Amino acid sequence: MNEKLNQLKERLGEVADIGRAASVLGWDQQVNMPPRGNEARGQQLATLSKIAQEKFITDEIGRLIEDLKQELDGADTAEAAMVRVAERNYNKARRVPPSFIAEQAIVTAKAFEAWMEARSKSDFSIFQPHLEKVVELVHRYISFFPAGEHPYDTLLDDYEPGMKTVDVKAIFDKLRPKQVKLIKAIASSKQVKADFLYKKYNEKKLNDFGVDVITRFGYDWSRGRQDKAPHPFETTFSVNDVRITTRYEEDNPLAMLFSTMHEAGHAMYEQGVNPEYDRTPISGGTSLAVHESQSRMWENLVGRSYPFWEHFYPALKKTFPSQLDGVSLKSFYKAINKVEPSLIRVNADEATYNLHIMLRLELEIGMVEGTLAIKDLPEIWNTKMQEYLGITPPDDARGVLQDIHWSGGAIGYFSTYALGNLVSVQCWEKINKDIPSLNDQIRKGDFSELLGWLRKNIHQHGQKYEPQTLVEKVTGSKITPEPYVRYLTKKYSEIYGL
Amino acid sequence: MNEKLNQLKERLGEVADIGRAASVLGWDQQVNMPPRGNEARGQQLATLSKIAQEKFITDEIGRLIEDLKQELDGADTAEAAMVRVAERNYNKARRVPPSFIAEQAIVTAKAFEAWMEARSKSDFSIFQPHLEKVVELVHRYISFFPAGEHPYDTLLDDYEPGMKTVDVKAIFDKLRPKQVKLIKAIASSKQVKADFLYKKYNEKKLNDFGVDVITRFGYDWSRGRQDKAPHPFETTFSVNDVRITTRYEEDNPLAMLFSTMHEAGHAMYEQGVNPEYDRTPISGGTSLAVHESQSRMWENLVGRSYPFWEHFYPALKKTFPSQLDGVSLKSFYKAINKVEPSLIRVNADEATYNLHIMLRLELEIGMVEGTLAIKDLPEIWNTKMQEYLGITPPDDARGVLQDIHWSGGAIGYFSTYALGNLVSVQCWEKINKDIPSLNDQIRKGDFSELLGWLRKNIHQHGQKYEPQTLVEKVTGSKITPEPYVRYLTKKYSEIYGL
Repeated sequence: MNEKLNQLKERLGEVADIGRAASVLGWDQQVNMPPRGNEARGQQLATLSKIAQEKFITDEIGRLIEDLKQELDGADTAEAAMVRVAERNYNKARRVPPSFIAEQAIVTAKAFEAWMEARSKSDFSIFQPHLEKVVELVHRYISFFPAGEHPYDTLLDDYEPGMKTVDVKAIFDKLRPKQVKLIKAIASSKQVKADFLYKKYNEKKLNDFGVDVITRFGYDWSRGRQDKAPHPFETTFSVNDVRITTRYEEDNPLAMLFSTMHEAGHAMYEQGVNPEYDRTPISGGTSLAVHESQSRMWENLVGRSYPFWEHFYPALKKTFPSQLDGVSLKSFYKAINKVEPSLIRVNADEATYNLHIMLRLELEIGMVEGTLAIKDLPEIWNTKMQEYLGITPPDDARGVLQDIHWSGGAIGYFSTYALGNLVSVQCWEKINKDIPSLNDQIRKGDFSELLGWLRKNIHQHGQKYEPQTLVEKVTGSKITPEPYVRYLTKKYSEIYGL
Repeated sequence: MNEKLNQLKERLGEVADIGRAASVLGWDQQVNMPPRGNEARGQQLATLSKIAQEKFITDEIGRLIEDLKQELDGADTAEAAMVRVAERNYNKARRVPPSFIAEQAIVTAKAFEAWMEARSKSDFSIFQPHLEKVVELVHRYISFFPAGEHPYDTLLDDYEPGMKTVDVKAIFDKLRPKQVKLIKAIASSKQVKADFLYKKYNEKKLNDFGVDVITRFGYDWSRGRQDKAPHPFETTFSVNDVRITTRYEEDNPLAMLFSTMHEAGHAMYEQGVNPEYDRTPISGGTSLAVHESQSRMWENLVGRSYPFWEHFYPALKKTFPSQLDGVSLKSFYKAINKVEPSLIRVNADEATYNLHIMLRLELEIGMVEGTLAIKDLPEIWNTKMQEYLGITPPDDARGVLQDIHWSGGAIGYFSTYALGNLVSVQCWEKINKDIPSLNDQIRKGDFSELLGWLRKNIHQHGQKYEPQTLVEKVTGSKITPEPYVRYLTKKYSEIYGL
């Protein structure tokens, strides 16, 4: 068995290397690349995708998986998990022709460039023909798989293994009335003052403050770095090279701080995976929802908590004395947790965030079912924003063009954000049981026990456990909305005196 | 034929894409990568090299080349050149086993890291075992090829197609006594004052000045960028993404300016190649010597010329008023052309530079012949520095550890620098015949006709012509030292009143 396992690991290691090389090219494309470099870069990424695919779906790998599966079946070992995840990915990949992968890489490279231009000019028509091609490809992609209950299941399963459209809908259906009711109650309460958050904050000082915070969290700079990019993201080149990006927004400067904590949350997950899993199918986080649970935990459950700011607010006030002049800790805490229907998903507060996701899920399902024409997207987007959040985007840049995902073909991705919110609080309840003094530790700026807990219970496992298995193992139940509703209700009842 | 040609181009395009992806990873390794990312990066580069090799040396490509060669033989077309260069590279590559390429990538990634550390600690013993492995690999590499007149020929041919060790030695033998004689005459003349060059110059202002200069030269920023790295270099990801790096040296601040012009010279060559050659075997410069002729032309024949500074000196003086207080244009011009035996090759003046190369050539030949033990390198280096230039490095960082090349296995590379100097002046004499007003144009800061000439006569051709063919086509003769000797003698006779 050892020989076969080593053979499989060597083959899959090469495939992983190509994927990681592509990630470097993708990172560079967004962080550094001069504008005219894009066409060749698209071609290079297409070639890498094609070769990774060719190298993965060989008969030899199929045989190795089949043989090893027999021998390892059912064992709770990393090796058995590697073979299980390899099999799952292999069976998917065999269905997708290499020529399709290459075409997709070219189409999405061009779509990304078009999206950048469309967003900067706030003109959806620039992006529209590219998105149409992207959706066409999505339809073809779905057609490679056996029809399930819903065509969207195929897409969802790529980001959240085992999750079904009907399950997500059920979770969202439970959640929606609770969130809507809460938002209504908040809307009729005394409003929170937050104007001081939108003064002019120096970009470099804000950036440095964010860097200090995530250093304290435990983001390991000897195995990472931070750069500027149009959209914040985390990307992994190995367990020892996990990078994040950030951006400064004139009209919402403090968003930089929270998105830095968010991306660091993703990065610490990746940095915490057992290094022996690197270059194997179980490296990296186990699913997008679990990944998002980590980023949202550091951004919201830590970064927007009162104890956190008990520690950091004096330093922030010292850094921005004029902006925060006369603003008490309590006022600041309320302001950064102000609930207000707003245009941009990534800047939405915890009480409204999931509604942004529900909107996108419905549009994506419409695109996948073919019941929605791409050209109508801006109008439908704006109508739904009005319906769900009571506001209408003044332009496409702050509406349908705000997110990078569709330009990369990542349809099926968005719901994992909302699921991640749920998982974050589900874990948080358990963590607070296991570490009763957690709030005191956070109040002292000490995150070591928290990070240790996450490493031990979540990070180190990589993809050894499937997401729902892991969530159940950690919290005692599969993904469920109740803890999140409890958390929101308690937090906002205090802030708004409900 | 068209179908076969398209097939070959498609296959070779993929190979080119992998090579370019590896270049992105290599650039990132030196410009951005966090320290601990190196091991995985070495692995990724090893995998890419291995796959590029596998994809290149297929029987299919061999057959396509063979068939197309028959049909295209002798034609002066880009297609015939593509097939000719492909054949040359193919025949070489078939001799080198993929496993060797992969091993080499891993060894050199580690050697690079060790070289970085060794240089920063000025401790050769850190680098020694890695260099020993590199040289071992070089011996194995040579053994894959039929024995030629000299084992070093195999290495030289990789960088300077068609060039033989005996030819380089002959050129250097003609050159050496002339340069030594000139240096001696200079040594016994009235010395030039240059202390003001070594004052403190602000890094950012210097960098900005360099950026202004190369923008004026015609470096196209929409198809490139500049970053900081430990060693300046140019790298090409496509004809539309040609990047350069720079560094600031405390003890020689203006070196930054000249190395920026140097790297921009390389980059403008790459940016000027016919875009239709991209992803084919004839993309990029035709050899290292011709490449170096371009970088040295912009750095020295333009950047250290009197007319150039007639234009730029007022701006430089305005940027650094205290450093250049009381320094006339003539004094500044003399200072930047001061001849003085010095330790660092990249900062050597034009009169001594080639002696640094001759030293390295002899050491490399010693390593290749096996007559020189790696552990003795620092001592031999220092002895030869004393013999050739009359000075001894005070430490290895400023001696044997100063260059990156050996850490990457690039043995056989150095002589192309000296050959490049010769080619630069050989072309320069022709350019001045074709553009009689060139000095007046440079005096006005106008480089457009010069760049146009280079594009038309050299850049656009890429690798369509072999280096010696191109040099002969452009100047009427193969590489020859006479023009360089004429240039040095005239320039330094004026400066030193010989």
